[in-house]
Order: sequence, then C-alpha cells, then structure tokens
Amino acid sequence: MASIMKRFWWERDDLEYRNGRLHLGEQDLAHFIESSGTPTFAYRGPRFVENLNRIHDALNRQEVSHRIHYAMKANRYPPLLTYARLMGKCGIDVCSPNELLLARQMGFKEHEIIYTGTSVSNQDLEIIARHPKVHVNCDAISTIRRLGERCPGREIGIRINPQLSASYVSYLSYGGEKATKFGIYPDRFEEALAVAEEYQLKITMLHVHSGAGYLNKHLPLFEQILEKMSTYLDQCPQIKQVDIGGGLGVPMIEEDNLLDLDRWATIVANFANPRGLEILLEPGDYLVKDTAVLLVEVNSVEEKGGTCFVGVNAGFSITNLPAYYDYPLIVSPVFYDSTVPLKTVTIAGHINEGLDVLAEDVVLPELKEGDYLAMMNVGGYSTSNSSNHCMRGDFSEYLFIE
Amino acid sequence: MASIMKRFWWERDDLEYRNGRLHLGEQDLAHFIESSGTPTFAYRGPRFVENLNRIHDALNRQEVSHRIHYAMKANRYPPLLTYARLMGKCGIDVCSPNELLLARQMGFKEHEIIYTGTSVSNQDLEIIARHPKVHVNCDAISTIRRLGERCPGREIGIRINPQLSASYVSYLSYGGEKATKFGIYPDRFEEALAVAEEYQLKITMLHVHSGAGYLNKHLPLFEQILEKMSTYLDQCPQIKQVDIGGGLGVPMIEEDNLLDLDRWATIVANFANPRGLEILLEPGDYLVKDTAVLLVEVNSVEEKGGTCFVGVNAGFSITNLPAYYDYPLIVSPVFYDSTVPLKTVTIAGHINEGLDVLAEDVVLPELKEGDYLAMMNVGGYSTSNSSNHCMRGDFSEYLFIE
Repeated sequence: MASIMKRFWWERDDLEYRNGRLHLGEQDLAHFIESSGTPTFAYRGPRFVENLNRIHDALNRQEVSHRIHYAMKANRYPPLLTYARLMGKCGIDVCSPNELLLARQMGFKEHEIIYTGTSVSNQDLEIIARHPKVHVNCDAISTIRRLGERCPGREIGIRINPQLSASYVSYLSYGGEKATKFGIYPDRFEEALAVAEEYQLKITMLHVHSGAGYLNKHLPLFEQILEKMSTYLDQCPQIKQVDIGGGLGVPMIEEDNLLDLDRWATIVANFANPRGLEILLEPGDYLVKDTAVLLVEVNSVEEKGGTCFVGVNAGFSITNLPAYYDYPLIVSPVFYDSTVPLKTVTIAGHINEGLDVLAEDVVLPELKEGDYLAMMNVGGYSTSNSSNHCMRGDFSEYLFIE
Repeated sequence: MASIMKRFWWERDDLEYRNGRLHLGEQDLAHFIESSGTPTFAYRGPRFVENLNRIHDALNRQEVSHRIHYAMKANRYPPLLTYARLMGKCGIDVCSPNELLLARQMGFKEHEIIYTGTSVSNQDLEIIARHPKVHVNCDAISTIRRLGERCPGREIGIRINPQLSASYVSYLSYGGEKATKFGIYPDRFEEALAVAEEYQLKITMLHVHSGAGYLNKHLPLFEQILEKMSTYLDQCPQIKQVDIGGGLGVPMIEEDNLLDLDRWATIVANFANPRGLEILLEPGDYLVKDTAVLLVEVNSVEEKGGTCFVGVNAGFSITNLPAYYDYPLIVSPVFYDSTVPLKTVTIAGHINEGLDVLAEDVVLPELKEGDYLAMMNVGGYSTSNSSNHCMRGDFSEYLFIE
C-alpha cells in the first residue's frame, strides 16, 4: 500500500489522494467518473469485510462467542448483499417481509436471517410463518401472541426497551425518558413471558437496540444498556443468546474519534462471558457507511447573500443525511489541485426545498462549473431511503470488488 | 349535500361522518377499504378544482389578472395530473427535466408549463432547450448565462430572493437572514440583467417564492415580500408579469385559521393592479393537501412506558410530514363509534426508526387490532417524496372523480 502523506483526517490507505486524484481502493475516481457519469455511488466491497473483521477480531480477542448479522436496512444494493453473502462472515438482519424475501433471494439461508420488526401486521406474520427457521425478535406482546397463534412452539427472541439510547444525535433515540414504540418495558416483561408460554413459544434470545452512531463518549451509556439487559436476563437464566443490535458509529467530523473497539469489546465481554452468553450483533451503518463515495458534478458556483453556493447535480432525494438527520458529509474534490486558493462554500442540491443543502461552510479549493466532488460517509441510509422528490431520484451504483 | 352536525373542526361537506362512517365525497370509506386494502391514498379530484376555484374567485373579486400553475412537486400522481389538465383551470409548474417531460406526457402544452429549477445542470438545459415555449425562471446568473448560450433571444423570468419567508415552520425557509440558495439577491440583480442582455434574453417575468404553508398571521410578511419585489420591479418597469410562487397554507390543527383569501387577494391586488401586472401563482400543497385521505390498518395496540402506542401498517416512508417536517396529520377512525370511551394514543409506523411516529397524543375512541384509521392532509409531499425505506414503500392510490 502507498505510504503517501495523507492530506486529510478521513484519508485511509483505500481512500486517499494519489497525485491529487482521489482513489477508492485501486480505482482512480477521476478516471472512473468519465465512464460512470454522475450522480454515482461507488462502494468498495473489501472495505465492508474489513469493517466486519474489525468487529470479529475485537470480540475474538476478548473471547466473546458471537455472530454478526448485517442490518440490510442500511443499504440493500443487491450486488453488495451478494458480495456480503459470498464473503461468508455475516448473517443478515431484516425488518420487513420484503427485506426477508430479498435476503432469501440473495442466497441467505433461513437460519442466517434475524427478523426484528415493529408494528408487525398479520400479513407480515404470514410471510414470517412461511420461513420457520428465520429467527424472529418480537418487540410487542401483540406480536408474541399473533406469532404464537400461527407458529406455536417456535423459538423466538424478545426485544426489550432499555429506556436509554447511545446515539450520535438525540432524535435517533430508541429508548430514553420519553416512551418509544420499541420493545417491552420492564413492567410488562413477565406478561410477555406468560404470553409466550401460553403458545409454547421458546424464548431463546433477548434483543436490545443500543443506539445509532455511538462513539467512545457514548460507551458508558452502552454499558448501562447492557446492565439494563442484565435485569431482564436475571428473570430468565435459561436464555443464552443476547442480540445487542447495531449502532456502532463511524467518525463523521475530525473531532470524532474512531470507536475504540477493544474498549467496546471489553464491555461486551464483561457482560457476556460470566453469563456464558452468545452475543449477536446487527451493525448496518458501521459496515457500509465508509465503503461509499457519492460522485457529483458542479452545476454552478455563485455568491448569494454573502455565501458562495456550489450547486451540484444531486440532492437530498438521494442522500437525506444532512437535511433530515444533521449528519455531516465529508466533501472533497475528485481532483485536488493544491495550487488553487481555498474558499469556504456551501454545497447545495437541485431540489426546490430550502432544506436541500448537502454541506455547509466547507473549505475547498475554489471550484468551477464542471468540477467533480466526492461525498464520503454515504454508504448507509442514503440510497436505502432515497426518494424521487422533484423527480430527482436517479443515480447509478457501482460495486468495486478490489 | 348533507347538513349533518359536524363532529370535528376538520369535517366539511365532502369529508365527514355519516352515521359514524367517514365519507370522502360520496364515497363511504368503510365500504371502499374492503376492496382497496391498505395502505391507500384516496384523492378527491373535485376538491382540487374547488381549491383552485377559491383562489381564482378571490383574485377575480379583486380584479387581479392572473394565471395559476399547479406545482407538480406536491403530488404527481398521473391520474390527478390528467384530471387537472382536463378540468382546464390551471397550467403546471415544474422544477426538473423529468417533471417537465411528465407534464408534457399528461397533455400540458409547452406554453402551459413554467419551469423554476435550482442548481440547473447543462443536461437540464439541453432538455429545456428542446421545449422553446416553456417559460423558464432562472434562479442564478449562471443559469441565465448557460441558457443564453443555448437559447439566445428566448423569453425568461428571473427568480429573486426576497430575504424573507412566510412559512408555517421556520426551517422551510426560502429566504431570511441566513442566505439561501434560491434566486438573485439585490446586490447582483443588475449583473443578472446585464448577462441576460448579453444573450438577448428578454426578461418578461420576475419570480419569488413567498413561503410554505402560510396562514393569516403570516400575511404581513407576505405583504413585505411583495414590497421587496417592488424594489426589483422599479428597476425594470417593462416587466408586466410577476410569479408569486406558492406557499398558501391549509389549517393543520384546530387553532389554525382558514387562510382569508379575500384579505390575501387584496394584498395581491394592491401590489399588482396599480402596476398593471399579471400575477402568476404556483400553489401545490394548497390544491392537493386536503384532497387526500391515507387509509391504514391498526396492527397492534399496546401500552409501552406509559404511552399507548397504536402500530399501523404504514410509516414515514410513505408520508414523512410528521417525522421530518413537524407537520401534524389529522387522524380519525374510518368507523366512528361514539359509544366507545376515548383514549389518548400515539400512532406509530412500521419502520425501524424512532422518528417513525405519525401522530402523537391524539384522542380517539379506543382502538383494537384490525381497525381502520384515516389520516388527513396527506395529499401533498407524501407520495411525491416517499421512499422504500425498510422496503416499506408500497401503497396504492385512487382518484375519486365525484
């Protein structure tokens, strides 16, 4: 690998400038873009596996028995799912009947699939019933009852509500002071167990979703969530599998630190090993977020009201992370010419809504019409919840397998 | 028409309970839902025309010469567009090449189409160039120049930035203290005129977008926006057409008052008539918002952490108004049984995100699994920017023509 001086905090050996040209893996994006056009999402498959292995390795160092199920909701680009399946280092986590069917279509076997849904309908349950070896986590007593009616004797998991959430932004909470729709609260856990027993459902797993995008500063909260889980486990010591959800974070700005996976794995080990638990995980964003680059073209560069707006040929229809989630994207030119003076600009999309701003006040070499920009950290929750707002929904996707 | 006592503030002659059964127009929704299934958006076409006529009538009473162009971005369901075209009382407003082509496909003639885009690409301009009679409003000097290069001599409009915005929620701002990407600011207006002249572009119109969802309390702000427009007009007295955009609001909660269109039209008349202007309007939400009902089924009813969550078979994938825009939806049962005790509930969707709550703390007759709910004020910006998040993007749509 090249040992070129990195210019930016976010560069890494597989995402870096070489002679001023941004590379993703071995691919020169400046060259690639000539054939792919824009807007284009390029994913580097091996990065997915590297991210996965990093978690496996950290847990293995702490001797935590575990399995990882990729949360498809983060990105369901079929070639990426096929790639993940062929690499064989993870199962898959789904949350709807269509996701379940897509997982099967991509070659995942039933027993490699975990289904954790919310507001589950009877129609959903009919499709789940057709897949008896899929592991289902029930997040409501209603779901336990209606699944029991259809599949008496089946093994299930129960999702609990930890009343805490370790999240990068507060409104991505899955628990907290305000009640959320997810899982069973302590006051009704016994009732949930009783309903399961009524239908001879065997509870083999407890599930908790820990948060979204959590980093080192959130780890004490993560530890508290596992302590909450312990109070549930104490009531059913026969359960030997705990699914701790996803939520592991990736740095989005320079001030964010890389999640210390060894510290994280020690917390998991202290929770799991004395109890002899197998840990299941459902990372989504952590696996795909930094695999991807969104390539766009500059349509216009114009000073308006004291701000230099760089208008590009993409918008929040294809990545709504900045507009709706306050998640910052990293933006950098595909060609970096260090002789060009820097300028503070705001990157605006082509959707007719004021919210459609992709990055504010970023310092870049002065841009001109026709230049190309790369946006990083768009691998998760961009295309998977994209829209065709203003009929600006088109994009292409490429999977780099090197 | 029935003169039945209305139970709720939002009921009207074409959206009301008859013997406890919610009707949209002459359609009994309880009966309809048996064949349509859920989730389903039902639109009442004649309501669109009624909303349109209300604006026409108010402006006619003030003798304001005007044309209305429906903003397709609010809802582009093709049967609704065909219906609007056949009724013949409006042109259409588009903001992207695909919207332009769809307008043409639905039978709108070029001269009935206004194109107001942002961050316009050269590819966009090539498609615009193929439609010489479409009226284009340019929102950047860059666009004026590049359109001029392709279509010298063409008639155009210029979008100005009013540095003010009349909006129901503050973050739907199209102008304000903070610079926005839209339109030309006063300090560069002369330059914009000069660039247009360089390419012999004839400026026949000025455009301003006034806001989003404005109601009576915002009318003084609306008036200020027109005053801002006057300062631009003073610089080019030959311009006799002003497009004042859309943004007219519909009440969303009981405390909201119906927009007083006579008061609004007087403001428009005071601005337009002394100058001999023709006014163009681009309402979107005002025309479609209250035409629609979203019908959903209750999957589960469950107390969690002190809140009664009603889980339904829809989510913010198909209407993101509450989750992303803080726009409240009106929720009511399709069958209203007034003998059933009331209960405060929160309506939650089936997407695995904490944000996926459709209505909080609403008082409804106690619900049970299998009940049907109607959600009102979903005609605009629900389906048009819907996603397939968690592969929960499916819905059906029906156009009622009575």
